[in-house]
Amino acid sequence: MGKKERIVGTCDSGIGPEGIRFNCLPQVVKELCGMFRNGGRTCHIEPVPIPSKDGIVDLVLKLQQVLFPGYFTEMILTPENLEYHLGQKLSVLYERIALQVGSAIRHDCFRHNQSCSNCGERSYQIAEVFIDSLPAIRERLESDIEATLIGDPAAANADEVVFSYPGLFATMVYRLAHRLFELEVPIIPRIMSEYAYHRTTIDINPEAHIGASFFIDHGAGVVIGATTDIGNRVRIYQGVTLGALSLPKDAGERLRHTKRHPTIEDDVIIYANATILGGDTVVGARSIIGGNVWLTRSVGSDTKVLLKQPELVYLGKKDDG
Amino acid sequence: MGKKERIVGTCDSGIGPEGIRFNCLPQVVKELCGMFRNGGRTCHIEPVPIPSKDGIVDLVLKLQQVLFPGYFTEMILTPENLEYHLGQKLSVLYERIALQVGSAIRHDCFRHNQSCSNCGERSYQIAEVFIDSLPAIRERLESDIEATLIGDPAAANADEVVFSYPGLFATMVYRLAHRLFELEVPIIPRIMSEYAYHRTTIDINPEAHIGASFFIDHGAGVVIGATTDIGNRVRIYQGVTLGALSLPKDAGERLRHTKRHPTIEDDVIIYANATILGGDTVVGARSIIGGNVWLTRSVGSDTKVLLKQPELVYLGKKDDG
Amino acid sequence: MGKKERIVGTCDSGIGPEGIRFNCLPQVVKELCGMFRNGGRTCHIEPVPIPSKDGIVDLVLKLQQVLFPGYFTEMILTPENLEYHLGQKLSVLYERIALQVGSAIRHDCFRHNQSCSNCGERSYQIAEVFIDSLPAIRERLESDIEATLIGDPAAANADEVVFSYPGLFATMVYRLAHRLFELEVPIIPRIMSEYAYHRTTIDINPEAHIGASFFIDHGAGVVIGATTDIGNRVRIYQGVTLGALSLPKDAGERLRHTKRHPTIEDDVIIYANATILGGDTVVGARSIIGGNVWLTRSVGSDTKVLLKQPELVYLGKKDDG
Repeated sequence: MGKKERIVGTCDSGIGPEGIRFNCLPQVVKELCGMFRNGGRTCHIEPVPIPSKDGIVDLVLKLQQVLFPGYFTEMILTPENLEYHLGQKLSVLYERIALQVGSAIRHDCFRHNQSCSNCGERSYQIAEVFIDSLPAIRERLESDIEATLIGDPAAANADEVVFSYPGLFATMVYRLAHRLFELEVPIIPRIMSEYAYHRTTIDINPEAHIGASFFIDHGAGVVIGATTDIGNRVRIYQGVTLGALSLPKDAGERLRHTKRHPTIEDDVIIYANATILGGDTVVGARSIIGGNVWLTRSVGSDTKVLLKQPELVYLGKKDDG
Repeated sequence: MGKKERIVGTCDSGIGPEGIRFNCLPQVVKELCGMFRNGGRTCHIEPVPIPSKDGIVDLVLKLQQVLFPGYFTEMILTPENLEYHLGQKLSVLYERIALQVGSAIRHDCFRHNQSCSNCGERSYQIAEVFIDSLPAIRERLESDIEATLIGDPAAANADEVVFSYPGLFATMVYRLAHRLFELEVPIIPRIMSEYAYHRTTIDINPEAHIGASFFIDHGAGVVIGATTDIGNRVRIYQGVTLGALSLPKDAGERLRHTKRHPTIEDDVIIYANATILGGDTVVGARSIIGGNVWLTRSVGSDTKVLLKQPELVYLGKKDDG
Repeated sequence: MGKKERIVGTCDSGIGPEGIRFNCLPQVVKELCGMFRNGGRTCHIEPVPIPSKDGIVDLVLKLQQVLFPGYFTEMILTPENLEYHLGQKLSVLYERIALQVGSAIRHDCFRHNQSCSNCGERSYQIAEVFIDSLPAIRERLESDIEATLIGDPAAANADEVVFSYPGLFATMVYRLAHRLFELEVPIIPRIMSEYAYHRTTIDINPEAHIGASFFIDHGAGVVIGATTDIGNRVRIYQGVTLGALSLPKDAGERLRHTKRHPTIEDDVIIYANATILGGDTVVGARSIIGGNVWLTRSVGSDTKVLLKQPELVYLGKKDDG
């Protein structure tokens, strides 16, 4: 290792005194085309569309406008114009969701060499069922906002939570992505959760199950794995990992469909940077997991688990308070 | 918990063979309207505007252009055109700041059922006082850049710091948001700090007090709570939390106005992932807090606090270096 | 410290009843101009352009389109149109890269008071050599995707990895930025890595050396310092720091060119939140570093290093599972 060889191209003539040219272009194009045509797995050179990342980010932002009307628009909403506003927004969303879902399932069919005769119809049906879930999702989010106000002394009011809490944004995207996952839409849920991660560095796999009144404070670095189960009224702080135990080298294939992540029961609080690992690990109802705790076995209900204070070494003067 | 019931809508007819339709639309609209009209706290269906998130992000970027002229614009600035450039930018900023501040205080009045007869005037006055603080803020930022160059061997020059240091960006946004907080502008400071968090995952509450020559290196996951006091020439690394002790379930209401976060005196260095908690916790001047240290009591001045190395377990061969 | 004096401007007349005005404008402009003209280091008031941050973000996104054709475009690519697509994209990139590189090296010359007679020519040559490296970079990235699929049970297929894995995005930007660093382009590599950090909070210094088949899972808070050496087939989890030992106050100048960060040999796995520090620290081939481990000395090959489980304190009921 560590030979530190430079990555160089095949027609690299170095930086010489020979003037401006771009002789390499045809060769680079040929080389890249060769790589992509020879069926590398990670090209999308196919006669079917693929979901558009920008399109899906746009969906998330439009859904946010519908779920929190009046916050993310320049328009002034009143009880009188609300119905028209929502009706129009949802009609547009219906078309856009169907479009992206259509690309996702067509792409998936193509990859699996399946015919896709009713893909168009299915994508409209999925879009409708999804939109029909929005009131229920909104209700869940209302419970999440309530949980934030109850749990965080720094939250002055609900407006601040809607506008500026990364945890609420990540939870909203999770609830939307999870619904699409339930509807068996491929790729899109992960693109959504990547966008939430990009905005918040909270990484919630859309497959996870999370109950009502969920509150993530600060949130940077929170990881919630695919097979995690979380009950109601759970509170989590920054840096918490609900993850898998250490994985063998070839984990990818072997463990794709087993429960690898913990179960967190109702009313649990998990403080900053705690790590809870393993599919058999259960944290019982109303238990509290202290900051930095590393947990790989189950904890009963109504239990407080703290790190035995690691000894500190003081050099120079100590507490003179 | 864990019943894993799907969130479903009330007119969900499943994904069947019945063709494309969107029969659900009126019902979903009606349902959502009902939820929003019944005075859920997190709607903004009111005859007053609310600050625009995009508008505030735009403010931050325009303020950055003024504070670091020539870096974030395509225009070439010279000593000759500088005055016109700044004069024009600041005039635009004056209007834009007054607009957003006006929305914020009108919205706040509306929420508190107060009349808002001089809200327009007040927002222009706040905009002026705020802009008048920019030279002083710029001076603080100059000290922060200097601190970065002194503290980080990887910083080749000041240009790199201005262009690419998340810590400087978060500190700039904090200094701007803190000034607006001092001027008692509601909501906007938190929207600003959320934007800084989005860009950097550094979470500095605008209420915190931070002295000159502040340097955050790397910075991912840094949390600085609302009632934190930080002196001059303090250096902080990634993952440091200056937070509150564990909070009771109903912390939100009870603790909103007490000092919950630590005091860090001049010339302190706090290494990566250290956690310092509690409103009575003081770290004395010139002290150094080691990486991963968990601190809930005061430390005197000129003291080095290290984690007693936790024992490591070696399986297989050990150090053969 | 902690005097909590407000930052105020010099013509601050407070918020009084005196109506709308902006009397302060000329004075604020004059003050700021004075600060900038007096040669503060962090202004760019010079007759030469400077790289554009937006322009460089655009470069990264265009390079991503070329390296992963078909994923980040609305266009449908087929084996027939691929060559035209790539040829056109690369021609545009050639011009754009030369433009930004030209600004970077002209700015650098200006700062060092060097003449820049062949800067234009050099920037086109660098652009060509850089583009000529793209097939080799693509091959590396193919190995990184493969490593992701092998290592992560949650990765359903390569599409998901390309679309939604922060680790892959950060690795791609690193590989591009590192190549520009090798070509001695100033500033731009750091602007690129800041963009990757903004998107992912993975902070890889462009100077670091990283071998093939590199996989970062989740990734929030990962820090890889400038003089780090990483071999082939290395796997890293969120929160891992490959950093420098604690630095003296004036570290910036003294240590700018020494090896301060560790060496990680082939086939090493480093679990979440482990911290490995120091330029003399070597982790031998095929070793595994457990979560939260804090390491400042070398580890031989084929070794597993775990934290001795810190004692947990259970209050209330313990495991009743």
